[in-house]
Amino acid sequence: MTATGSHSENAAGLRSYKALEARFHRLAALGEAAGMLQWDMAAMMPPGGAEARAEQLAQLRLVCHEILADPAMGGLLGEAESRREELDPWARANLHEMRRQWVHATALEPRLVEALSRAASRCEGIWREARAASDFAKVAPALGELLGLVREAAAAKAARLGCGLYEALLDEYEPGGKTETIDRLFDDLAAFLPDLREKALAAQARRPAPLTARGPFPVAQQKALAERLMASIGFDFDHGRLDTSLHPFCGGTSDDVRITTRYDESDFASALMGVLHETGHALYERGLPKSWRYQPVGQARGMGMHESQSLLMEMQACRSKPFLTYLAPLLVEAFGHDDPAFTAENLLALYWRVQPGFIRVEADEVTYPSHVILRYRLERAMIEGRMEVADLPGAWNEGMEALLGIRPPSDREGCLQDIHWYDGAFGYFPTYTLGAMNAAQLFDAAGRADPEIPARIGHGDFEPLLAWLRANVHGLGSSVTASEILVRATGKPLDAGVFERHLERRYLAQG
Amino acid sequence: MTATGSHSENAAGLRSYKALEARFHRLAALGEAAGMLQWDMAAMMPPGGAEARAEQLAQLRLVCHEILADPAMGGLLGEAESRREELDPWARANLHEMRRQWVHATALEPRLVEALSRAASRCEGIWREARAASDFAKVAPALGELLGLVREAAAAKAARLGCGLYEALLDEYEPGGKTETIDRLFDDLAAFLPDLREKALAAQARRPAPLTARGPFPVAQQKALAERLMASIGFDFDHGRLDTSLHPFCGGTSDDVRITTRYDESDFASALMGVLHETGHALYERGLPKSWRYQPVGQARGMGMHESQSLLMEMQACRSKPFLTYLAPLLVEAFGHDDPAFTAENLLALYWRVQPGFIRVEADEVTYPSHVILRYRLERAMIEGRMEVADLPGAWNEGMEALLGIRPPSDREGCLQDIHWYDGAFGYFPTYTLGAMNAAQLFDAAGRADPEIPARIGHGDFEPLLAWLRANVHGLGSSVTASEILVRATGKPLDAGVFERHLERRYLAQG
Repeated sequence: MTATGSHSENAAGLRSYKALEARFHRLAALGEAAGMLQWDMAAMMPPGGAEARAEQLAQLRLVCHEILADPAMGGLLGEAESRREELDPWARANLHEMRRQWVHATALEPRLVEALSRAASRCEGIWREARAASDFAKVAPALGELLGLVREAAAAKAARLGCGLYEALLDEYEPGGKTETIDRLFDDLAAFLPDLREKALAAQARRPAPLTARGPFPVAQQKALAERLMASIGFDFDHGRLDTSLHPFCGGTSDDVRITTRYDESDFASALMGVLHETGHALYERGLPKSWRYQPVGQARGMGMHESQSLLMEMQACRSKPFLTYLAPLLVEAFGHDDPAFTAENLLALYWRVQPGFIRVEADEVTYPSHVILRYRLERAMIEGRMEVADLPGAWNEGMEALLGIRPPSDREGCLQDIHWYDGAFGYFPTYTLGAMNAAQLFDAAGRADPEIPARIGHGDFEPLLAWLRANVHGLGSSVTASEILVRATGKPLDAGVFERHLERRYLAQG
Repeated sequence: MTATGSHSENAAGLRSYKALEARFHRLAALGEAAGMLQWDMAAMMPPGGAEARAEQLAQLRLVCHEILADPAMGGLLGEAESRREELDPWARANLHEMRRQWVHATALEPRLVEALSRAASRCEGIWREARAASDFAKVAPALGELLGLVREAAAAKAARLGCGLYEALLDEYEPGGKTETIDRLFDDLAAFLPDLREKALAAQARRPAPLTARGPFPVAQQKALAERLMASIGFDFDHGRLDTSLHPFCGGTSDDVRITTRYDESDFASALMGVLHETGHALYERGLPKSWRYQPVGQARGMGMHESQSLLMEMQACRSKPFLTYLAPLLVEAFGHDDPAFTAENLLALYWRVQPGFIRVEADEVTYPSHVILRYRLERAMIEGRMEVADLPGAWNEGMEALLGIRPPSDREGCLQDIHWYDGAFGYFPTYTLGAMNAAQLFDAAGRADPEIPARIGHGDFEPLLAWLRANVHGLGSSVTASEILVRATGKPLDAGVFERHLERRYLAQG
């Protein structure tokens, strides 16, 4: 429902709002086109198509930028905002998101956008060599140059958004996110986790190690099982696909969600959880409000909330004891033979294993937040000018020791491991752990609202959980802030305690 | 190579030309994006994605139309044309194609474009019902309305292009095509074919009927054989894919050519030739001039030339005796068993079978042109106001009788069989038979230029043929007219006689 039904169509403010809706509708449809081309690039495109695809995407991006940066846009926004009281709450929220997108698109001078893009490409290229050689010094100058430009961009955006430097970058991934909030939550976690981790490791040492199932597990059988589980969770194959790509992701559009995974024929366990993770992302996209489909307010509410939906599905629902108990006999069926590893008990040992390590993407649920907290603190220090690039390796290694009790033997397993900074992406990292905390708090609230949910999941029936998520998260789009979604759905703002209680139950009490 | 290297960059005319190149570059890249989305729609998209995909394509189309119809475009074209003598021949041809595209995009008032689109959608919907019910009267009013608008569009374009009504429609598919030429060629064929057909049928009756191979032929085996043959013809899988769709086609871009087919597990023969046909289209796209990749002059030279490349590969090369002799043992290998139908002799009987029928898309090489000539004459009469829609069924049936000696028992097998007119596409049909004639003439010239070609094809080696096509057809893009391509490559303009000699050799002399 938009505003004009109940108000005079002649008012200039409302005419401006309708004009904005038309422009953002086009932007959304072109954005979807680009999204499909990106999926194709990862899942279908032959290698020789890369250059042409880059050109198609670059031209689409330019067209979208020209639409957003059109000189008339600022005037339209101002006019519509001058009459915002006459808009209904969704339209008002839509207008707010329009301005936010416009600010991000226009805050930087074209010169800076171009310099950033060039410096990021260059730095990423050098990083690939530096990482292979485990030689931070090799990439330090390029990273320094890139960081300088990112800080310039942060300053320009901060001035327009009226927030701090780091928040100006964070805002692109976590709209309205505040460092004060993140500091409070992350400090709480950083104080809690070391003790939990040590207790969990000690308890784990007293139990038998997980058995490894004997493969091979043919791709076709893994895929059939994955599709069966996706369907029971609520993935609609009339509106989506499962394919293969090097890096698993969820792409496409909300009517045509394309998730990908990669298979290892010697290990059934990793693709399986990967697919369930991406299914959580996919269901969020599918559940977004249809009547706002092509408007900013109809989009997902930031990366922290998106990651919460994948982690809720993977970590909260599908690594739960009821679901793993349900899964065990399905493995026997799917792979056509029994295996001592296919018992509920062994699946619990396998999927609840805690193992501190250097590499974030291989980390378990207990140690993952420490990787994120480290990166958040370091990137904030760099953006706020409190740390030089040259000091990064030392600060990284000290931080790892403090947070995780281990020290990387090389920068390749340290500050060179992630692409993010070297590609110019600062402000993204905290969303992973915000997502994990959101997931725990939302799953907890869902279970309190409908106590049948865990038992139903134990029968492979996700309907009540999905219904709760649709009503309390997916259907809200970007109509309110992430924090407001949480308050409405769970009765309180994000609280690290709920995530901590979840970890204690799972890793200390084995519940 | 473009003009500005050797000329003053300050001249307004050349500046205008460079500005046009930038605009058409963007159009080409966006057109490629749309092409990939159309391929996905046919080959990958789940059914629920249809509505969103239509919206993505509609917005892309609107953006492209706005670029082409930009008020500055006419001035830029005029300025560049005033200095055309200073451009090199390719740039000059490019400018010519730019104007042609611009004229087609701007000749119709927006009101007419919208009315046409609406009437075509409506008529196509009614046609589906009318065809199912074999009831022409049901769709006649909608077709009449659509035809009225198409004639209005033809008049508007004819005035801008300075040509006849029918030619104005033909020009979109066959740039610069002339009815006088088509009349001459088609009259020649229409006089020649009935006698050839009867003689071919009589000769065929004296030989044993082709044997049907015993299936099933699993899709995976058919696909593996198709890919093997594609590779030997010169299809580069680093720059393309083979997939499945309801209606086979060649899509994608010249660096990433996507061809499709459909498989029938009870019949190995049809998907196989379908793939070889689409491979011919694909090789044309791959061979277009790289340095003009994103400019109009770098595109394929119309549908008649495109169809010539698919028919040259399928009809001239791959249905030849040397190739079918080469193919026979590959069938045994591909399907893992021998079959009396897998002999060169039987493949010739199968792939050279003449069988007059009512349906164009099922027609053989000998009878196909008669289907096209009939449609060309009827659609021209309708466009030029010499025939009313109400008279179509009668005229169709009489025409079939005169050209093919058979009379359809119903309109479903008559004038209701093809979607083209009911979707508003007038002027397309002749390109099928222009393609067949081009194919015969080009293949004949290739064989005279390099007499080894047929024997090499008999060893599955298409390299000399492909080299000749690249040099004489593909690499020319749209730098000259289709007729000029033919003159340069074969020494003369299109000549029905070459195609007729080919038919005589194959169907009467069995050579």
